[in-house]
Amino acid sequence: MSEFNFIHDLRSLSDPNHALNFEDDAATLPAADVICTDTLVETVHFLGTEPPQALAHKVLAVNVSDVVSMNARATHALLNLSLPKACDSAWRAGFIEGLERACAGFGLRLLGGDTTRSPGPLVLTATVTGVLEGRTLWQRSGARLGDKVCVGGRIGRGALGLRDMLNGRADTAMAEHFQCPRPRLDLLGSEGVGGCADVSDGLIADLAHICRASGVCAVLDLDAVPFAEPSEDWAQQVTGGDDYQLVFTLRPDMPVPPGCAVVGEVVEEGVEPHANQPVILKGPRAAVEAAQTKTGFVHF
Amino acid sequence: MSEFNFIHDLRSLSDPNHALNFEDDAATLPAADVICTDTLVETVHFLGTEPPQALAHKVLAVNVSDVVSMNARATHALLNLSLPKACDSAWRAGFIEGLERACAGFGLRLLGGDTTRSPGPLVLTATVTGVLEGRTLWQRSGARLGDKVCVGGRIGRGALGLRDMLNGRADTAMAEHFQCPRPRLDLLGSEGVGGCADVSDGLIADLAHICRASGVCAVLDLDAVPFAEPSEDWAQQVTGGDDYQLVFTLRPDMPVPPGCAVVGEVVEEGVEPHANQPVILKGPRAAVEAAQTKTGFVHF
Repeated sequence: MSEFNFIHDLRSLSDPNHALNFEDDAATLPAADVICTDTLVETVHFLGTEPPQALAHKVLAVNVSDVVSMNARATHALLNLSLPKACDSAWRAGFIEGLERACAGFGLRLLGGDTTRSPGPLVLTATVTGVLEGRTLWQRSGARLGDKVCVGGRIGRGALGLRDMLNGRADTAMAEHFQCPRPRLDLLGSEGVGGCADVSDGLIADLAHICRASGVCAVLDLDAVPFAEPSEDWAQQVTGGDDYQLVFTLRPDMPVPPGCAVVGEVVEEGVEPHANQPVILKGPRAAVEAAQTKTGFVHF
Repeated sequence: MSEFNFIHDLRSLSDPNHALNFEDDAATLPAADVICTDTLVETVHFLGTEPPQALAHKVLAVNVSDVVSMNARATHALLNLSLPKACDSAWRAGFIEGLERACAGFGLRLLGGDTTRSPGPLVLTATVTGVLEGRTLWQRSGARLGDKVCVGGRIGRGALGLRDMLNGRADTAMAEHFQCPRPRLDLLGSEGVGGCADVSDGLIADLAHICRASGVCAVLDLDAVPFAEPSEDWAQQVTGGDDYQLVFTLRPDMPVPPGCAVVGEVVEEGVEPHANQPVILKGPRAAVEAAQTKTGFVHF
């Protein structure tokens, strides 16, 4: 598959009203409320052994997840692909197949992008726009004293999936999640959400982002976390990242959205925004200490 | 300079109303009409010996140029930087200095981005949005039979600058242009423009893009081209790229914008859009043949 055919085949995924057939120097921009961009680098964010279908899914999914964490629905994407020689015509066909499936699944259309050679690793960037459709914008800074801390579902699948991949087991359910994360589109419009982030850096780190942006401290109760594997290392699962669940605070009088779990509470406000340790861990002492060691967090 | 300080220092370049202090998973999107994105890869698009100030300028400039070629003024940018170890704190400080100067010069504010490690080359991506402010959108497909073909200024500085750089002479005027191209913001709003593109792939190639998108053939008269160095290889200068001039067609009854030169004419319409040779070269036979050899174009 030549460069020409590659762009030609991507055209079927384009927005006919805005991508201008990929013929122009720019696209016209559809109405949108939010924009985000994330880059995945081979050997930094993925191993390089993943099938191209999965990589196409993941570079869109991590951006869709960012858009969802703002309460917006992703609608359009631009793609920057820097491809080493190993990305031959079979690889490109697989990548397009993955894009087709992901675009259909997420309701995305392509606006444009840039395809270049890479003399080194495969580097994939997507930039995604999204629409609020009348919903309230969620921000990390929205947490308030007394809010519950919630997660959208199981925590730790990213970390355990990466572990499986590194052990050469790419066919486990966890490895499948690491390769093809599912952004929580079903949580869009949930009522009573305060601060929100997606869990990409690890539950503790992303809750800490919410706390710092909001100037609060929160307790995280490890005993309440719905672990992907409750019998496995808890510290690894709350620090490992790549979950693409949502972590959010919820006003105290609001019902917990279906499928979500309460894992803590916002316990202090007016905290200096650059606080090093805004997340207070609760739970079995060994697990707390292991997690503190991994994050470097020691509260008080 | 740590990662934290790097993001912190970029904050001063952000749009305070939309970047959300770089604290959230996405930014809110300001009103915009067009969007484009371009990636520069070390050893593919630049040598790697350029100062970081120049690289910061160039990754914004090539995108601003794309936006200008649609008749829009660039207002906001997202940056994806994949940095190898060699990009140490001094490099990062220089890069921020270059961004500051370029953002001020182009009237750009940052919306967000993503900074990652790279185990290989330096990879720089910018995504830029722009506003028409009531001007007509220019597209490559706007050329019509009888239009003049114009260029915004001297052609060949990109090619000769790259030649100088490869010869270790980074301080010539041409090398300065290769490193710090100047998008033609002054041509925004020019009257009577038909099809337009910026000269990034080379004058012949970019005029061919306009011709294919418009379904026309055009004559390019090499004797009329304002070469950067009329005494140097013409073929190299019309095929080399990286000029970031505009090439555009102009309705026959319209005056040529100040500083622009007429270099040809649209001579045929209704041409099959995938025509291989939509640009007919005129001029000294040796120069025409040399350019045809370089592009692979042989008309009829």
